[in-house]
Amino acid sequence: MNPLLKEIRHNPLLWLLVFVPVVFVVHKLKPEAHTLVFVLSVLAIVPLAAMLSHATESVAAKTGDAVGGLLNATLGNLTELVIALAALRAGQYTLVKSSIAGAIVTNTLFMLGASFLLGGLKHHTQEYNRVSARLQAGLLFLATVALLVPSAVSHADATETTAFLQKLSVGLSVLLIIAYGLGLVFSLKTHREIFGSTAHDEGEEAPWPMGLALGTLAGVTVLVALVSEVFVESVQGAALQLGMTQAFVGFIVVALVGGAAEMASAFSGARKNRLDLSVGIALGSAAQIALFVAPVLVLLSYVMGPTPMSLQFWPGAVVMMLIATMTASLVTNSGRSAWFVGVLVLMVYLIFAMTLYLLPPRVQ
Amino acid sequence: MNPLLKEIRHNPLLWLLVFVPVVFVVHKLKPEAHTLVFVLSVLAIVPLAAMLSHATESVAAKTGDAVGGLLNATLGNLTELVIALAALRAGQYTLVKSSIAGAIVTNTLFMLGASFLLGGLKHHTQEYNRVSARLQAGLLFLATVALLVPSAVSHADATETTAFLQKLSVGLSVLLIIAYGLGLVFSLKTHREIFGSTAHDEGEEAPWPMGLALGTLAGVTVLVALVSEVFVESVQGAALQLGMTQAFVGFIVVALVGGAAEMASAFSGARKNRLDLSVGIALGSAAQIALFVAPVLVLLSYVMGPTPMSLQFWPGAVVMMLIATMTASLVTNSGRSAWFVGVLVLMVYLIFAMTLYLLPPRVQ
Amino acid sequence: MNPLLKEIRHNPLLWLLVFVPVVFVVHKLKPEAHTLVFVLSVLAIVPLAAMLSHATESVAAKTGDAVGGLLNATLGNLTELVIALAALRAGQYTLVKSSIAGAIVTNTLFMLGASFLLGGLKHHTQEYNRVSARLQAGLLFLATVALLVPSAVSHADATETTAFLQKLSVGLSVLLIIAYGLGLVFSLKTHREIFGSTAHDEGEEAPWPMGLALGTLAGVTVLVALVSEVFVESVQGAALQLGMTQAFVGFIVVALVGGAAEMASAFSGARKNRLDLSVGIALGSAAQIALFVAPVLVLLSYVMGPTPMSLQFWPGAVVMMLIATMTASLVTNSGRSAWFVGVLVLMVYLIFAMTLYLLPPRVQ
Repeated sequence: MNPLLKEIRHNPLLWLLVFVPVVFVVHKLKPEAHTLVFVLSVLAIVPLAAMLSHATESVAAKTGDAVGGLLNATLGNLTELVIALAALRAGQYTLVKSSIAGAIVTNTLFMLGASFLLGGLKHHTQEYNRVSARLQAGLLFLATVALLVPSAVSHADATETTAFLQKLSVGLSVLLIIAYGLGLVFSLKTHREIFGSTAHDEGEEAPWPMGLALGTLAGVTVLVALVSEVFVESVQGAALQLGMTQAFVGFIVVALVGGAAEMASAFSGARKNRLDLSVGIALGSAAQIALFVAPVLVLLSYVMGPTPMSLQFWPGAVVMMLIATMTASLVTNSGRSAWFVGVLVLMVYLIFAMTLYLLPPRVQ
Repeated sequence: MNPLLKEIRHNPLLWLLVFVPVVFVVHKLKPEAHTLVFVLSVLAIVPLAAMLSHATESVAAKTGDAVGGLLNATLGNLTELVIALAALRAGQYTLVKSSIAGAIVTNTLFMLGASFLLGGLKHHTQEYNRVSARLQAGLLFLATVALLVPSAVSHADATETTAFLQKLSVGLSVLLIIAYGLGLVFSLKTHREIFGSTAHDEGEEAPWPMGLALGTLAGVTVLVALVSEVFVESVQGAALQLGMTQAFVGFIVVALVGGAAEMASAFSGARKNRLDLSVGIALGSAAQIALFVAPVLVLLSYVMGPTPMSLQFWPGAVVMMLIATMTASLVTNSGRSAWFVGVLVLMVYLIFAMTLYLLPPRVQ
Repeated sequence: MNPLLKEIRHNPLLWLLVFVPVVFVVHKLKPEAHTLVFVLSVLAIVPLAAMLSHATESVAAKTGDAVGGLLNATLGNLTELVIALAALRAGQYTLVKSSIAGAIVTNTLFMLGASFLLGGLKHHTQEYNRVSARLQAGLLFLATVALLVPSAVSHADATETTAFLQKLSVGLSVLLIIAYGLGLVFSLKTHREIFGSTAHDEGEEAPWPMGLALGTLAGVTVLVALVSEVFVESVQGAALQLGMTQAFVGFIVVALVGGAAEMASAFSGARKNRLDLSVGIALGSAAQIALFVAPVLVLLSYVMGPTPMSLQFWPGAVVMMLIATMTASLVTNSGRSAWFVGVLVLMVYLIFAMTLYLLPPRVQ
């Protein structure tokens, strides 16, 4: 257990682990203190997400490029998946969907924009591999189309539409997972030479030994699941007490919490002029949520949820995902960046956050 | 008649010509067997379309670059035009419009995507002249705007809107035809040097002598017109009997039938690493339908149809054409391709096809 | 006063100054002759706008690059601002908004398209600095998102939505002005070397002495304000008498009048193969109106208008601005131009103009 303890001592983020037991105690003693429990569970999830991410990378580092890449690509958003599963089992489909849409938008705009800005404040202009950015933007575009078409096409009366949307959602989910899988084959196998420059960028932190990594992966996943349940239970009450709309909480707060660990890596990469790493994490993570996490949740809702969940999103969420994807396409087209590009992307995110914050409750 | 018979003997596609007489006989004897007549007329149109396309190319090859290009650009979608005219005369404007929209979407996504995929499975990466692809994508974008604006702008009460839409449709049709004509002047005359690489790609099959080509052109057009009438008559009944929505039939089936001959050329070009040819056929054909066939049909509806036809499409069709155009723009931007680009484009098409297939009838 | 008189003698456009006194006299004597007053005020504004533009450039030329660029960027659309202020004080918010949207669309499509066409008719192909075009297109995209989101997100009942839209409009206005300011810092200060080639393009006309320039700036602004009031008063009556919809007048006529002086510069630059100048004026002016004039008007409506004005536009206007922005992005992506690119852009503008001209009055 030496490397784990050593890492905790050197990484102040992990000191937040102390909130993991605290949140369970407080939730037991004061279940009605929604805001307190909400804040504590946020503070507890952040270090767990960081450990999950490090453990995944350690396993990936040991298993060689292809398997490792696959592992990273499947488990990279384990935190988001576990939080969403907790909400799914509770039947809170609005929260599930707004956290999916929020994670896509937050990764595409906030993580990407802040990386450009932070990197640009230190370096005059930065360059990155735009082929890789284009692949991720293309996958995101595909996912956005899959989410857009059901809403655009169905205007009919409710009864027929529900059955239609269920069947369509299952079909689209299968398509998206296939596209994601083929994308992995393309980037990890047949054409991996063109996705070159990020390859050796990971090896910065010393990987943990295999046993420790696997143990951490299992143990921390269980902890995240338990904290997530408390989190999902408290989020609605906390939103009410804090005067925030539920859309804002799902879209912005949950997404920032779930992605905190990845953001730390992306921002640190940008400061070190390794923008390939930042762009890869931001867009790769968004694509993974759109093409893997979201469809898996739809399919799992048939097994775990009270009723099947569809892929249809609230129109405002579809518009935001579409704009986020277009922004990413426009901005990554040149493969170059400066601080103002980051400002532009962050401004789009601020427009969304402001709109959701001010939105009257009934409109969601 | 030697070269014609020789070609029929060597090209298995043309053996389907045997269905041309069969469809007339069956339609006479069993007019209520809609599905049978529908399938037979599809089988009869495919070889006729192939002959029409070869005859047009033969005439074009004999008349020199400028006139030849013009001929190809005007008669290249003769099959689609003749089918649509049959539907127009029967007053089936929903079928006319969904076959136009379907042809645009099918050429832009299915023909382009399958070319990229088939070419990419054989060649690691492929390059093509992106200037030409950009011109076609630009023309397609213009046409999509022309189809989008009437729907976006008009929400008013029915009586005023109808008159407004009729006048607007005529005006837009004239604009689109002018834009198409100027595009030909640009690509065949003033700037033809930048559209270079497709120039000598056509000469693969030996052209027919002029007399044979012109005779075939005239005779086969008449045959296509006759079969199309049977096809249009049977399509609705067949859709009902096969359990397919009318939107699916118009969008997908008719478009695949009408474009079968061009698809054969595009796919064969892609396999031979002549992607310029494939991209040119796919996007050029889509642009031609959007900027020439569609407006000509609107103008002809004043002469041949029971009432004037407008350029306003069902909102779902406009969304699909818009997404198809954006996909083509994004994908052809780099001038390079690999198999996964084809997968992405085909997936967008599959999303549309799946949505239309599952669509409850009333929604169309 | 010598240089001023000399310029008036040599510049036929300035001979129109004679209409300035005429419009006041006619408006006094025949206030009900709306069409006459409207035409006269248009003829009077055009030369005043040209003088305003020259005076601003003269002041800018004397004050050095950074301050001069700032002045140009703030006062460059003084005419549009003064006209809009007159409409704002009269409480004509529909006219204010349609003139803002119209100015954005007209600058992006008509000024850019006509520059490409006029330049392309004289020069086979032309090149320009696409980095600068991308910055302006990025800013325009941001502004379009800011105008799109309020409309896309709000579908609720009227009372709650109004308060929500007011708060959101103020917030978005502040964001847009900040983005515009940071864009100036980026292009005039931290990264000005990449916006190079337009730098020495201005010095064509001899700048006026400082005193004359400042005096002209002050005096002509007052004149424009006075004529604008007459213009705003007469525009509705004139539209009725001429049979034009109000949307057409606001979008097309006011925008062409307000931008006449800039168009003269942009077109002359294109003919002289200095397309950087033309693209910079067209997109820079559109971005300035979207990110500076529009939000300033929203904020000023709290001080000067009868009620606060929101940033929410009629959906058709949002669609047009979105399409105009997408067209500019697509077209300036390559940094090269030929005459047909201009035709494509102008066609999009013609589609809008035709739609607005034919629009039945109630639909606006």
